[in-house]
Amino acid sequence: MSKVIVTIGRQYGSGGRRIGELVAKELGISFYDKELITETAKKSGYSEEVLKNNDEKPTGSFLYSIVIGANGGDSLPLDNKLFLAQFDTIKDIASKNSCVIIGRCADYALEERNDVFNVFIYSDVEKRIKRVVEEYGVEEKKAADIINKTDKKRASYYNFYSGKKWGKAESYNLCIDSGKFGIENTAKIIADCAINFEKSEKK
Amino acid sequence: MSKVIVTIGRQYGSGGRRIGELVAKELGISFYDKELITETAKKSGYSEEVLKNNDEKPTGSFLYSIVIGANGGDSLPLDNKLFLAQFDTIKDIASKNSCVIIGRCADYALEERNDVFNVFIYSDVEKRIKRVVEEYGVEEKKAADIINKTDKKRASYYNFYSGKKWGKAESYNLCIDSGKFGIENTAKIIADCAINFEKSEKK
Repeated sequence: MSKVIVTIGRQYGSGGRRIGELVAKELGISFYDKELITETAKKSGYSEEVLKNNDEKPTGSFLYSIVIGANGGDSLPLDNKLFLAQFDTIKDIASKNSCVIIGRCADYALEERNDVFNVFIYSDVEKRIKRVVEEYGVEEKKAADIINKTDKKRASYYNFYSGKKWGKAESYNLCIDSGKFGIENTAKIIADCAINFEKSEKK
Repeated sequence: MSKVIVTIGRQYGSGGRRIGELVAKELGISFYDKELITETAKKSGYSEEVLKNNDEKPTGSFLYSIVIGANGGDSLPLDNKLFLAQFDTIKDIASKNSCVIIGRCADYALEERNDVFNVFIYSDVEKRIKRVVEEYGVEEKKAADIINKTDKKRASYYNFYSGKKWGKAESYNLCIDSGKFGIENTAKIIADCAINFEKSEKK
């Protein structure tokens, strides 16, 4: 395989992070989820704490701020500056290596490249509740509410910055139900498709 | 492989029918697209012409009609009766054989079965225009408009009867961009996933 960047959007509790790790392992390439925060901190000078507190949080004034901040961006609100810093880090990482990147509008940051395979992972809510209770230690009675709120934040962040629709099939190249296929199988299917995708791009 | 039903929702011009034929061939199972009309005509007594004229056409009064028609359904409008006849035909076909069924809310008709693999196929609009011009003989200047209107009808029909959202990832088990993977590759990926799916169901 020459080069492929796999971006993974995911519903909370669908196993997206774990699946992404397995895809990266299967393909022998780098993996970035929270690791993006460390990379962005190194590159931009913002503290990891500030970046973590604003990670995938929706904002409400980006386009307006872009206009206001046209004189160099100094007057941009902090959340937009952090988004742009992460955006630059994602572009920089993708320019160097094959990798898997979880969330953070990576598909949008990389939309001008033709070696990017965009994936969305989802599952029925019962399986997601089971996963967040068993794997993330969330209280069962709070699980459905946390899932709902986290997905709303992710959708709002994605829709606002990318201009596409989070969870709508045509925003991605492949969308897969991890609840039906299971974590390992889903990873295997995505890895196989990434190899297939990379071959398609050469045609 | 023991048994699997593959339902395929598709954007107009994405190659869904051709891909479905290739999936059926690869898996050695039956294929139903327009063939459903003939089957429904045989089973229900409605003429093929009437069924064809109402095929995947949206309606606006189904729930209301169900209430009104609770005394046996005789007072249901014709379009709802045709939908129900097709619905019965789909259930009947699925009870007998492994098969691929294109469109017509087959996923919804079969939602109580656990051997049904629901797929959605889409592509960028440029590739779809190219396909409908070259393969279906549509005039180039009319292609975008026909694509738009056909997809609106399909969405309206699907959303109305199924209560799910056409083209939204979580309405299906797999959504795939045939524009990126190509027709043959997309069919191969779906066939492989169908085998994988059928194994997952046994666990």
